[in-house]
Amino acid sequence: MTGPEPLVRPSIDAPPPAVILVRPQLGMNIGAVARAMLNFGLTDLRLVQPRDGWPNADAGPSAVGADIVLDGATVHDSLADACKGLTLVLATAMDTRDMTRRVVTPTQAVKEFIALPAGGGLVFGPERTGLVRADLLQCHAICTIPSNPDFGSLNLAQSVAVLGYEWVRQRHDGLAETVINHPGPALHNELQDLITAIDAKLAEHGYYSPEEGRAAAAKRMMINMFTRPQFSGEEVRSLRGIVRGLVAPRANRARPTQPSS
Amino acid sequence: MTGPEPLVRPSIDAPPPAVILVRPQLGMNIGAVARAMLNFGLTDLRLVQPRDGWPNADAGPSAVGADIVLDGATVHDSLADACKGLTLVLATAMDTRDMTRRVVTPTQAVKEFIALPAGGGLVFGPERTGLVRADLLQCHAICTIPSNPDFGSLNLAQSVAVLGYEWVRQRHDGLAETVINHPGPALHNELQDLITAIDAKLAEHGYYSPEEGRAAAAKRMMINMFTRPQFSGEEVRSLRGIVRGLVAPRANRARPTQPSS
Repeated sequence: MTGPEPLVRPSIDAPPPAVILVRPQLGMNIGAVARAMLNFGLTDLRLVQPRDGWPNADAGPSAVGADIVLDGATVHDSLADACKGLTLVLATAMDTRDMTRRVVTPTQAVKEFIALPAGGGLVFGPERTGLVRADLLQCHAICTIPSNPDFGSLNLAQSVAVLGYEWVRQRHDGLAETVINHPGPALHNELQDLITAIDAKLAEHGYYSPEEGRAAAAKRMMINMFTRPQFSGEEVRSLRGIVRGLVAPRANRARPTQPSS
Repeated sequence: MTGPEPLVRPSIDAPPPAVILVRPQLGMNIGAVARAMLNFGLTDLRLVQPRDGWPNADAGPSAVGADIVLDGATVHDSLADACKGLTLVLATAMDTRDMTRRVVTPTQAVKEFIALPAGGGLVFGPERTGLVRADLLQCHAICTIPSNPDFGSLNLAQSVAVLGYEWVRQRHDGLAETVINHPGPALHNELQDLITAIDAKLAEHGYYSPEEGRAAAAKRMMINMFTRPQFSGEEVRSLRGIVRGLVAPRANRARPTQPSS
Protein backbone atom coordinates (compact mmCIF):
# COMPACT_ATOMS: atom_id res chain seq x y z
CA MET A 1 0.00 0.00 0.00
CA THR A 2 1.62 3.23 -1.08
CA GLY A 3 -1.50 5.45 -1.25
CA PRO A 4 -2.06 8.26 1.25
CA GLU A 5 -3.38 7.23 4.66
CA PRO A 6 -6.63 8.69 5.93
CA LEU A 7 -6.15 11.68 8.21
CA VAL A 8 -7.96 9.99 11.10
CA ARG A 9 -7.97 6.24 11.37
CA PRO A 10 -10.78 4.86 13.51
CA SER A 11 -9.25 2.21 15.74
CA ILE A 12 -10.98 -1.13 15.99
CA ASP A 13 -9.43 -1.29 19.44
CA ALA A 14 -10.66 2.11 20.61
CA PRO A 15 -11.61 1.74 24.28
CA PRO A 16 -15.30 2.24 25.07
CA PRO A 17 -16.04 5.61 26.68
CA ALA A 18 -16.13 5.96 30.46
CA VAL A 19 -19.53 6.79 31.97
CA ILE A 20 -19.36 9.58 34.54
CA LEU A 21 -22.40 10.16 36.75
CA VAL A 22 -22.33 13.59 38.41
CA ARG A 23 -24.14 13.71 41.77
CA PRO A 24 -26.40 10.72 41.02
CA GLN A 25 -29.36 10.53 43.39
CA LEU A 26 -30.81 7.00 43.51
CA GLY A 27 -28.73 3.85 44.00
CA MET A 28 -31.36 2.02 41.94
CA ASN A 29 -30.52 4.20 38.98
CA ILE A 30 -26.77 3.67 39.39
CA GLY A 31 -27.43 -0.07 39.26
CA ALA A 32 -29.60 0.30 36.15
CA VAL A 33 -26.81 2.32 34.52
CA ALA A 34 -24.30 -0.43 35.32
CA ARG A 35 -26.57 -3.01 33.67
CA ALA A 36 -27.08 -0.89 30.56
CA MET A 37 -23.32 -0.27 30.35
CA LEU A 38 -22.40 -3.94 30.51
CA ASN A 39 -25.16 -4.79 28.00
CA PHE A 40 -23.16 -2.78 25.48
CA GLY A 41 -19.65 -3.62 26.66
CA LEU A 42 -18.94 -0.45 28.67
CA THR A 43 -17.31 -1.06 32.04
CA ASP A 44 -15.62 2.14 33.27
CA LEU A 45 -18.09 3.76 35.71
CA ARG A 46 -17.06 6.90 37.61
CA LEU A 47 -19.23 8.52 40.29
CA VAL A 48 -18.87 12.16 41.29
CA GLN A 49 -20.29 12.88 44.76
CA PRO A 50 -23.03 10.25 44.77
CA ARG A 51 -25.78 11.65 47.01
CA ASP A 52 -26.13 8.62 49.25
CA GLY A 53 -22.45 7.65 49.34
CA TRP A 54 -20.85 4.56 47.89
CA PRO A 55 -21.27 1.61 47.90
CA ASN A 56 -25.06 1.82 47.87
CA ALA A 57 -27.13 -1.27 48.69
CA ASP A 58 -29.89 -0.14 46.28
CA ALA A 59 -27.60 -0.44 43.28
CA GLY A 60 -27.11 -4.21 43.29
CA PRO A 61 -30.65 -5.41 42.54
CA SER A 62 -31.17 -3.15 39.51
CA ALA A 63 -27.73 -4.04 38.14
CA VAL A 64 -29.08 -7.61 37.70
CA GLY A 65 -25.64 -9.19 37.59
CA ALA A 66 -23.50 -6.34 36.28
CA ASP A 67 -21.38 -6.62 39.42
CA ILE A 68 -18.15 -6.21 37.51
CA VAL A 69 -19.19 -2.63 36.70
CA LEU A 70 -20.38 -1.75 40.21
CA ASP A 71 -17.34 -3.32 41.88
CA GLY A 72 -15.00 -1.40 39.58
CA ALA A 73 -16.77 1.96 39.99
CA THR A 74 -14.58 4.78 41.27
CA VAL A 75 -15.74 7.70 43.41
CA HIS A 76 -14.54 11.26 42.89
CA ASP A 77 -14.82 14.61 44.65
CA SER A 78 -15.05 16.59 41.44
CA LEU A 79 -15.84 16.17 37.76
CA ALA A 80 -12.30 17.26 36.93
CA ASP A 81 -10.92 14.44 39.07
CA ALA A 82 -13.27 11.92 37.42
CA CYS A 83 -12.06 12.99 33.97
CA LYS A 84 -8.39 12.26 34.69
CA GLY A 85 -6.84 10.08 32.02
CA LEU A 86 -9.64 10.76 29.52
CA THR A 87 -9.32 12.80 26.36
CA LEU A 88 -12.58 13.87 24.68
CA VAL A 89 -15.23 14.49 27.35
CA LEU A 90 -18.83 14.97 26.21
CA ALA A 91 -21.65 16.21 28.41
CA THR A 92 -25.13 14.80 27.83
CA ALA A 93 -27.67 17.59 27.99
CA MET A 94 -30.81 18.86 26.32
CA ASP A 95 -29.36 22.28 25.67
CA THR A 96 -26.09 24.11 25.97
CA ARG A 97 -27.05 26.45 28.84
CA ASP A 98 -25.38 29.32 27.00
CA MET A 99 -22.05 27.53 26.81
CA THR A 100 -20.34 27.96 23.44
CA ARG A 101 -20.01 24.32 22.55
CA ARG A 102 -20.56 22.02 19.64
CA VAL A 103 -23.78 20.02 20.05
CA VAL A 104 -23.46 16.55 18.54
CA THR A 105 -25.81 13.63 17.99
CA PRO A 106 -24.99 10.23 19.53
CA THR A 107 -23.96 9.13 16.02
CA GLN A 108 -21.38 11.89 15.78
CA ALA A 109 -20.25 11.38 19.40
CA VAL A 110 -19.45 7.74 18.77
CA LYS A 111 -17.67 8.56 15.52
CA GLU A 112 -15.40 10.84 17.51
CA PHE A 113 -14.89 8.32 20.33
CA ILE A 114 -13.90 5.65 17.81
CA ALA A 115 -11.30 7.99 16.32
CA LEU A 116 -9.63 8.76 19.66
CA PRO A 117 -6.14 7.51 20.43
CA ALA A 118 -7.12 7.22 24.13
CA GLY A 119 -10.39 6.89 26.02
CA GLY A 120 -13.21 9.43 26.03
CA GLY A 121 -15.93 10.06 28.58
CA LEU A 122 -19.68 10.64 28.67
CA VAL A 123 -20.93 12.82 31.52
CA PHE A 124 -24.48 12.51 32.87
CA GLY A 125 -26.07 14.87 35.39
CA PRO A 126 -28.29 14.20 38.42
CA GLU A 127 -31.64 12.59 37.60
CA ARG A 128 -33.79 15.56 38.50
CA THR A 129 -31.84 18.53 37.23
CA GLY A 130 -29.22 17.36 34.74
CA LEU A 131 -25.84 18.99 34.51
CA VAL A 132 -25.31 22.55 35.66
CA ARG A 133 -23.23 25.16 33.88
CA ALA A 134 -20.15 24.53 36.00
CA ASP A 135 -20.19 20.92 34.78
CA LEU A 136 -20.76 21.79 31.12
CA LEU A 137 -17.95 24.30 31.25
CA GLN A 138 -15.48 21.43 31.74
CA CYS A 139 -16.70 19.39 28.76
CA HIS A 140 -15.46 19.73 25.20
CA ALA A 141 -18.87 19.37 23.58
CA ILE A 142 -22.46 18.42 24.32
CA CYS A 143 -24.19 15.28 23.15
CA THR A 144 -27.95 15.49 22.76
CA ILE A 145 -30.10 12.42 22.10
CA PRO A 146 -32.71 13.36 19.49
CA SER A 147 -36.15 12.98 21.05
CA ASN A 148 -39.71 14.24 21.24
CA PRO A 149 -39.44 18.04 21.63
CA ASP A 150 -42.55 17.98 23.85
CA PHE A 151 -41.38 15.10 26.06
CA GLY A 152 -37.65 14.90 25.80
CA SER A 153 -36.46 14.13 29.32
CA LEU A 154 -34.99 10.62 29.24
CA ASN A 155 -34.50 8.27 32.15
CA LEU A 156 -30.81 8.19 33.17
CA ALA A 157 -30.19 4.49 32.49
CA GLN A 158 -32.13 4.68 29.21
CA SER A 159 -29.85 7.50 28.07
CA VAL A 160 -26.85 5.33 28.89
CA ALA A 161 -28.49 2.44 27.01
CA VAL A 162 -29.05 4.58 23.91
CA LEU A 163 -25.43 5.75 23.85
CA GLY A 164 -24.18 2.24 24.58
CA TYR A 165 -26.30 0.91 21.74
CA GLU A 166 -24.93 3.57 19.40
CA TRP A 167 -21.38 2.56 20.41
CA VAL A 168 -22.10 -1.06 19.54
CA ARG A 169 -24.11 -0.19 16.41
CA GLN A 170 -21.28 1.74 14.78
CA ARG A 171 -18.61 -0.75 15.73
CA HIS A 172 -20.78 -3.50 14.27
CA ASP A 173 -21.23 -1.47 11.12
CA GLY A 174 -20.67 -3.65 8.14
CA LEU A 175 -22.22 -6.67 9.82
CA ALA A 176 -25.30 -8.03 8.09
CA GLU A 177 -28.46 -6.11 8.96
CA THR A 178 -30.40 -9.27 8.24
CA VAL A 179 -29.56 -12.88 9.01
CA ILE A 180 -31.72 -15.61 7.54
CA ASN A 181 -32.26 -18.29 10.17
CA HIS A 182 -33.33 -20.79 7.59
CA PRO A 183 -31.93 -23.92 5.95
CA GLY A 184 -32.09 -22.12 2.60
CA PRO A 185 -34.48 -22.45 -0.33
CA ALA A 186 -35.47 -25.88 -1.57
CA LEU A 187 -34.01 -27.28 -4.77
CA HIS A 188 -35.64 -25.38 -7.57
CA ASN A 189 -37.14 -28.50 -9.12
CA GLU A 190 -38.73 -29.53 -5.80
CA LEU A 191 -40.57 -26.22 -5.71
CA GLN A 192 -41.58 -26.52 -9.36
CA ASP A 193 -42.95 -30.00 -8.74
CA LEU A 194 -45.09 -28.62 -5.92
CA ILE A 195 -46.37 -25.80 -8.08
CA THR A 196 -47.11 -28.16 -10.95
CA ALA A 197 -49.02 -30.45 -8.62
CA ILE A 198 -51.10 -27.60 -7.23
CA ASP A 199 -51.74 -26.26 -10.72
CA ALA A 200 -52.85 -29.66 -12.01
CA LYS A 201 -55.25 -30.20 -9.13
CA LEU A 202 -56.71 -26.70 -9.46
CA ALA A 203 -57.23 -27.24 -13.19
CA GLU A 204 -58.84 -30.62 -12.52
CA HIS A 205 -61.20 -29.00 -9.98
CA GLY A 206 -62.27 -26.25 -12.40
CA TYR A 207 -60.66 -23.54 -10.23
CA TYR A 208 -59.46 -21.46 -13.17
CA SER A 209 -61.90 -19.10 -14.89
CA PRO A 210 -62.81 -20.06 -18.46
CA GLU A 211 -61.68 -16.55 -19.42
CA GLU A 212 -58.07 -16.93 -20.53
CA GLY A 213 -56.62 -13.68 -19.16
CA ARG A 214 -58.15 -14.17 -15.71
CA ALA A 215 -57.01 -17.78 -15.58
CA ALA A 216 -53.46 -16.73 -16.40
CA ALA A 217 -53.57 -14.02 -13.72
CA ALA A 218 -54.83 -16.46 -11.10
CA LYS A 219 -52.09 -18.91 -12.00
CA ARG A 220 -49.44 -16.18 -11.80
CA MET A 221 -50.62 -15.18 -8.35
CA MET A 222 -50.46 -18.78 -7.15
CA ILE A 223 -46.93 -19.15 -8.48
CA ASN A 224 -45.87 -15.87 -6.88
CA MET A 225 -47.26 -16.89 -3.51
CA PHE A 226 -45.35 -20.16 -3.46
CA THR A 227 -42.12 -18.83 -4.95
CA ARG A 228 -41.51 -15.66 -2.97
CA PRO A 229 -41.20 -17.17 0.56
CA GLN A 230 -38.13 -19.26 -0.39
CA PHE A 231 -39.56 -22.36 1.29
CA SER A 232 -36.97 -24.89 2.37
CA GLY A 233 -36.94 -28.46 1.03
CA GLU A 234 -38.56 -29.68 4.22
CA GLU A 235 -41.26 -27.05 3.92
CA VAL A 236 -41.93 -27.88 0.29
CA ARG A 237 -42.37 -31.53 1.21
CA SER A 238 -44.68 -30.47 4.04
CA LEU A 239 -46.69 -28.36 1.58
CA ARG A 240 -47.07 -31.36 -0.70
CA GLY A 241 -48.66 -33.13 2.27
CA ILE A 242 -50.85 -30.13 3.06
CA VAL A 243 -52.07 -30.02 -0.53
CA ARG A 244 -52.90 -33.71 -0.41
CA GLY A 245 -54.63 -33.17 2.92
CA LEU A 246 -56.77 -30.43 1.41
CA VAL A 247 -57.67 -32.49 -1.65
CA ALA A 248 -59.15 -35.43 0.19
CA PRO A 249 -59.41 -37.06 3.62
CA ARG A 250 -56.61 -39.47 4.43
CA ALA A 251 -58.84 -42.59 4.22
CA ASN A 252 -59.97 -41.68 0.69
CA ARG A 253 -56.57 -41.19 -0.85
CA ALA A 254 -53.76 -43.49 -1.78
CA ARG A 255 -51.15 -43.79 0.96
CA PRO A 256 -47.91 -42.06 0.10
CA THR A 257 -45.11 -44.47 -0.72
CA GLN A 258 -42.63 -42.56 1.51
CA PRO A 259 -42.70 -43.49 5.18
CA SER A 260 -44.93 -41.23 7.29
CA SER A 261 -43.22 -39.32 10.10
CA MET B 1 -40.36 13.63 -13.64
CA THR B 2 -40.58 10.82 -16.16
CA GLY B 3 -37.90 8.50 -14.74
CA PRO B 4 -38.76 5.25 -13.03
CA GLU B 5 -40.02 5.51 -9.47
CA PRO B 6 -38.18 3.66 -6.72
CA LEU B 7 -39.72 0.29 -5.94
CA VAL B 8 -40.27 1.16 -2.30
CA ARG B 9 -40.72 4.74 -1.28
CA PRO B 10 -40.09 5.42 2.39
CA SER B 11 -42.91 7.62 3.60
CA ILE B 12 -42.07 10.65 5.63
CA ASP B 13 -45.47 10.15 7.23
CA ALA B 14 -45.01 6.47 8.10
CA PRO B 15 -46.74 5.92 11.45
CA PRO B 16 -44.44 4.94 14.31
CA PRO B 17 -44.64 1.25 15.22
CA ALA B 18 -47.03 0.05 17.90
CA VAL B 19 -45.40 -1.39 21.03
CA ILE B 20 -46.96 -4.68 22.15
CA LEU B 21 -46.08 -6.01 25.59
CA VAL B 22 -46.90 -9.69 25.96
CA ARG B 23 -47.75 -10.73 29.54
CA PRO B 24 -45.81 -7.85 31.16
CA GLN B 25 -45.17 -8.45 34.85
CA LEU B 26 -44.46 -5.19 36.68
CA GLY B 27 -46.61 -2.08 36.39
CA MET B 28 -43.47 -0.05 37.06
CA ASN B 29 -41.95 -1.43 33.87
CA ILE B 30 -45.09 -0.68 31.83
CA GLY B 31 -44.83 2.92 33.00
CA ALA B 32 -41.14 3.08 32.13
CA VAL B 33 -41.98 1.73 28.66
CA ALA B 34 -44.63 4.43 28.22
CA ARG B 35 -42.09 7.11 29.11
CA ALA B 36 -39.48 5.72 26.70
CA MET B 37 -42.11 5.50 23.95
CA LEU B 38 -43.22 9.10 24.30
CA ASN B 39 -39.58 10.25 24.49
CA PHE B 40 -39.25 9.05 20.92
CA GLY B 41 -42.73 9.89 19.64
CA LEU B 42 -44.30 6.43 19.92
CA THR B 43 -47.81 6.40 21.43
CA ASP B 44 -49.60 3.15 20.47
CA LEU B 45 -49.19 0.81 23.47
CA ARG B 46 -50.94 -2.58 23.45
CA LEU B 47 -50.93 -4.94 26.44
CA VAL B 48 -51.54 -8.67 26.09
CA GLN B 49 -52.69 -10.28 29.35
CA PRO B 50 -50.84 -7.95 31.76
CA ARG B 51 -50.12 -10.06 34.85
CA ASP B 52 -51.60 -7.64 37.38
CA GLY B 53 -54.53 -6.44 35.26
CA TRP B 54 -55.03 -2.97 33.87
CA PRO B 55 -54.98 -0.13 34.82
CA ASN B 56 -52.11 -0.65 37.24
CA ALA B 57 -51.34 1.98 39.87
CA ASP B 58 -47.62 1.19 39.71
CA ALA B 59 -47.38 2.36 36.10
CA GLY B 60 -48.08 6.05 36.65
CA PRO B 61 -45.04 7.08 38.71
CA SER B 62 -42.48 5.53 36.36
CA ALA B 63 -44.23 7.00 33.31
CA VAL B 64 -43.23 10.44 34.71
CA GLY B 65 -45.89 12.29 32.72
CA ALA B 66 -46.39 10.03 29.72
CA ASP B 67 -50.07 9.76 30.66
CA ILE B 68 -51.21 10.07 27.07
CA VAL B 69 -49.58 6.70 26.35
CA LEU B 70 -50.90 4.95 29.47
CA ASP B 71 -54.41 6.33 29.03
CA GLY B 72 -54.51 5.21 25.42
CA ALA B 73 -53.15 1.70 26.09
CA THR B 74 -55.39 -1.13 24.93
CA VAL B 75 -55.67 -4.56 26.58
CA HIS B 76 -55.91 -7.80 24.60
CA ASP B 77 -56.56 -11.47 25.29
CA SER B 78 -54.10 -12.67 22.68
CA LEU B 79 -51.12 -11.49 20.65
CA ALA B 80 -53.15 -12.05 17.48
CA ASP B 81 -55.84 -9.69 18.76
CA ALA B 82 -53.22 -7.09 19.68
CA CYS B 83 -51.78 -7.22 16.16
CA LYS B 84 -55.07 -6.35 14.43
CA GLY B 85 -54.65 -3.48 11.99
CA LEU B 86 -50.87 -3.83 11.88
CA THR B 87 -48.85 -5.06 8.93
CA LEU B 88 -45.22 -5.99 9.62
CA VAL B 89 -44.92 -7.44 13.13
CA LEU B 90 -41.42 -7.96 14.55
CA ALA B 91 -40.63 -9.91 17.71
CA THR B 92 -37.77 -8.69 19.88
CA ALA B 93 -35.73 -11.65 21.05
CA MET B 94 -32.16 -12.78 21.60
CA ASP B 95 -32.53 -15.83 19.41
CA THR B 96 -35.03 -17.40 17.06
CA ARG B 97 -36.00 -20.40 19.24
CA ASP B 98 -35.78 -22.63 16.18
CA MET B 99 -38.30 -20.59 14.24
CA THR B 100 -37.36 -20.08 10.60
CA ARG B 101 -37.31 -16.32 10.58
CA ARG B 102 -35.20 -13.46 9.36
CA VAL B 103 -33.23 -11.88 12.20
CA VAL B 104 -32.80 -8.15 11.70
CA THR B 105 -30.92 -5.40 13.48
CA PRO B 106 -32.84 -2.39 14.85
CA THR B 107 -31.41 -0.43 11.91
CA GLN B 108 -32.95 -2.83 9.41
CA ALA B 109 -36.21 -3.06 11.39
CA VAL B 110 -36.72 0.69 11.26
CA LYS B 111 -35.86 0.80 7.55
CA GLU B 112 -38.67 -1.67 6.97
CA PHE B 113 -41.11 0.17 9.24
CA ILE B 114 -40.43 3.42 7.40
CA ALA B 115 -41.20 1.71 4.08
CA LEU B 116 -44.57 0.36 5.22
CA PRO B 117 -47.82 1.68 3.78
CA ALA B 118 -49.54 1.03 7.16
CA GLY B 119 -48.35 0.65 10.74
CA GLY B 120 -46.02 -2.05 12.00
CA GLY B 121 -45.59 -3.49 15.47
CA LEU B 122 -42.79 -4.40 17.87
CA VAL B 123 -43.51 -7.26 20.25
CA PHE B 124 -41.76 -7.57 23.63
CA GLY B 125 -42.03 -10.57 25.95
CA PRO B 126 -42.39 -10.79 29.73
CA GLU B 127 -39.49 -9.33 31.70
CA ARG B 128 -38.19 -12.60 33.08
CA THR B 129 -38.57 -15.03 30.21
CA GLY B 130 -39.00 -13.13 26.98
CA LEU B 131 -41.26 -14.35 24.21
CA VAL B 132 -42.09 -18.04 23.89
CA ARG B 133 -42.26 -19.98 20.63
CA ALA B 134 -46.02 -19.58 20.29
CA ASP B 135 -45.50 -15.80 20.26
CA LEU B 136 -42.59 -15.86 17.81
CA LEU B 137 -44.57 -18.09 15.47
CA GLN B 138 -46.97 -15.20 14.86
CA CYS B 139 -44.30 -12.65 13.99
CA HIS B 140 -42.86 -12.05 10.53
CA ALA B 141 -39.29 -11.65 11.68
CA ILE B 142 -37.16 -11.21 14.78
CA CYS B 143 -35.37 -8.03 15.79
CA THR B 144 -32.26 -8.47 17.93
CA ILE B 145 -30.50 -5.53 19.56
CA PRO B 146 -26.75 -6.06 19.16
CA SER B 147 -25.23 -6.34 22.63
CA ASN B 148 -22.58 -7.93 24.82
CA PRO B 149 -22.71 -11.68 24.06
CA ASP B 150 -21.84 -12.41 27.69
CA PHE B 151 -24.40 -10.02 29.19
CA GLY B 152 -27.08 -9.43 26.60
CA SER B 153 -30.33 -9.37 28.55
CA LEU B 154 -31.67 -5.82 28.32
CA ASN B 155 -34.15 -4.16 30.63
CA LEU B 156 -37.59 -4.00 28.97
CA ALA B 157 -37.93 -0.22 28.91
CA GLN B 158 -34.31 0.17 27.78
CA SER B 159 -35.03 -2.10 24.82
CA VAL B 160 -38.01 0.09 23.93
CA ALA B 161 -35.79 3.17 24.31
CA VAL B 162 -33.16 1.75 21.96
CA LEU B 163 -35.72 0.95 19.28
CA GLY B 164 -37.46 4.29 19.78
CA TYR B 165 -34.12 6.04 19.43
CA GLU B 166 -33.38 4.11 16.25
CA TRP B 167 -36.79 5.17 14.87
CA VAL B 168 -36.00 8.83 15.55
CA ARG B 169 -32.38 8.52 14.42
CA GLN B 170 -33.25 7.28 10.97
CA ARG B 171 -36.10 9.70 10.45
CA HIS B 172 -33.76 12.51 11.46
CA ASP B 173 -31.16 11.20 9.06
CA GLY B 174 -29.82 14.03 7.01
CA LEU B 175 -30.03 16.46 9.90
CA ALA B 176 -26.72 17.90 10.97
CA GLU B 177 -24.77 15.58 13.25
CA THR B 178 -23.12 18.62 14.73
CA VAL B 179 -24.57 22.00 15.57
CA ILE B 180 -22.21 24.79 16.55
CA ASN B 181 -23.76 26.72 19.43
CA HIS B 182 -21.54 29.63 18.79
CA PRO B 183 -21.78 33.13 17.31
CA GLY B 184 -19.32 32.05 14.61
CA PRO B 185 -15.64 32.82 14.09
CA ALA B 186 -14.36 36.34 14.59
CA LEU B 187 -13.46 38.51 11.63
CA HIS B 188 -10.25 37.14 10.26
CA ASN B 189 -8.37 40.39 10.79
CA GLU B 190 -9.44 40.53 14.47
CA LEU B 191 -7.84 37.14 15.03
CA GLN B 192 -4.72 38.13 13.10
CA ASP B 193 -4.38 41.27 15.23
CA LEU B 194 -4.52 39.13 18.36
CA ILE B 195 -1.91 36.73 17.02
CA THR B 196 0.32 39.60 15.96
CA ALA B 197 0.03 41.17 19.42
CA ILE B 198 0.92 37.91 21.15
CA ASP B 199 3.80 37.29 18.77
CA ALA B 200 5.20 40.79 19.29
CA LYS B 201 5.07 40.49 23.09
CA LEU B 202 6.68 37.02 23.03
CA ALA B 203 9.47 38.32 20.79
CA GLU B 204 9.94 41.34 23.08
CA HIS B 205 10.21 39.01 26.12
CA GLY B 206 12.76 36.75 24.45
CA TYR B 207 10.40 33.77 24.34
CA TYR B 208 11.62 32.51 21.00
CA SER B 209 14.73 30.39 20.80
CA PRO B 210 17.70 31.99 19.06
CA GLU B 211 17.74 28.89 16.83
CA GLU B 212 15.75 29.80 13.74
CA GLY B 213 13.99 26.45 13.11
CA ARG B 214 12.86 26.08 16.68
CA ALA B 215 11.65 29.68 16.82
CA ALA B 216 9.58 29.13 13.67
CA ALA B 217 8.11 25.89 15.09
CA ALA B 218 7.17 27.61 18.35
CA LYS B 219 5.50 30.40 16.44
CA ARG B 220 3.59 27.93 14.24
CA MET B 221 2.30 26.12 17.30
CA MET B 222 1.12 29.38 18.86
CA ILE B 223 -0.68 30.34 15.65
CA ASN B 224 -2.28 26.88 15.41
CA MET B 225 -3.54 27.03 18.97
CA PHE B 226 -5.25 30.34 18.47
CA THR B 227 -6.60 29.65 14.99
CA ARG B 228 -8.11 26.17 15.31
CA PRO B 229 -10.75 26.92 18.00
CA GLN B 230 -12.61 29.42 15.75
CA PHE B 231 -12.86 31.95 18.57
CA SER B 232 -15.73 34.41 18.21
CA GLY B 233 -15.18 38.16 17.98
CA GLU B 234 -16.16 38.54 21.64
CA GLU B 235 -13.72 35.81 22.62
CA VAL B 236 -10.89 37.35 20.59
CA ARG B 237 -11.47 40.67 22.35
CA SER B 238 -11.51 38.84 25.68
CA LEU B 239 -8.23 37.15 24.76
CA ARG B 240 -6.69 40.53 24.01
CA GLY B 241 -7.61 41.47 27.59
CA ILE B 242 -6.23 38.21 28.97
CA VAL B 243 -2.93 38.77 27.15
CA ARG B 244 -2.72 42.29 28.55
CA GLY B 245 -3.58 40.88 31.99
CA LEU B 246 -0.75 38.36 31.72
CA VAL B 247 1.77 40.94 30.57
CA ALA B 248 1.35 43.33 33.48
CA PRO B 249 -0.86 44.14 36.46
CA ARG B 250 -3.76 46.46 35.67
CA ALA B 251 -2.30 49.42 37.63
CA ASN B 252 0.94 49.27 35.64
CA ARG B 253 -0.58 49.42 32.18
CA ALA B 254 -2.37 52.00 30.13
CA ARG B 255 -6.20 51.88 30.41
CA PRO B 256 -7.87 50.63 27.25
CA THR B 257 -9.52 53.35 25.23
CA GLN B 258 -12.68 51.26 24.67
CA PRO B 259 -15.34 51.44 27.42
CA SER B 260 -15.03 48.68 30.00
CA SER B 261 -18.02 46.36 30.43
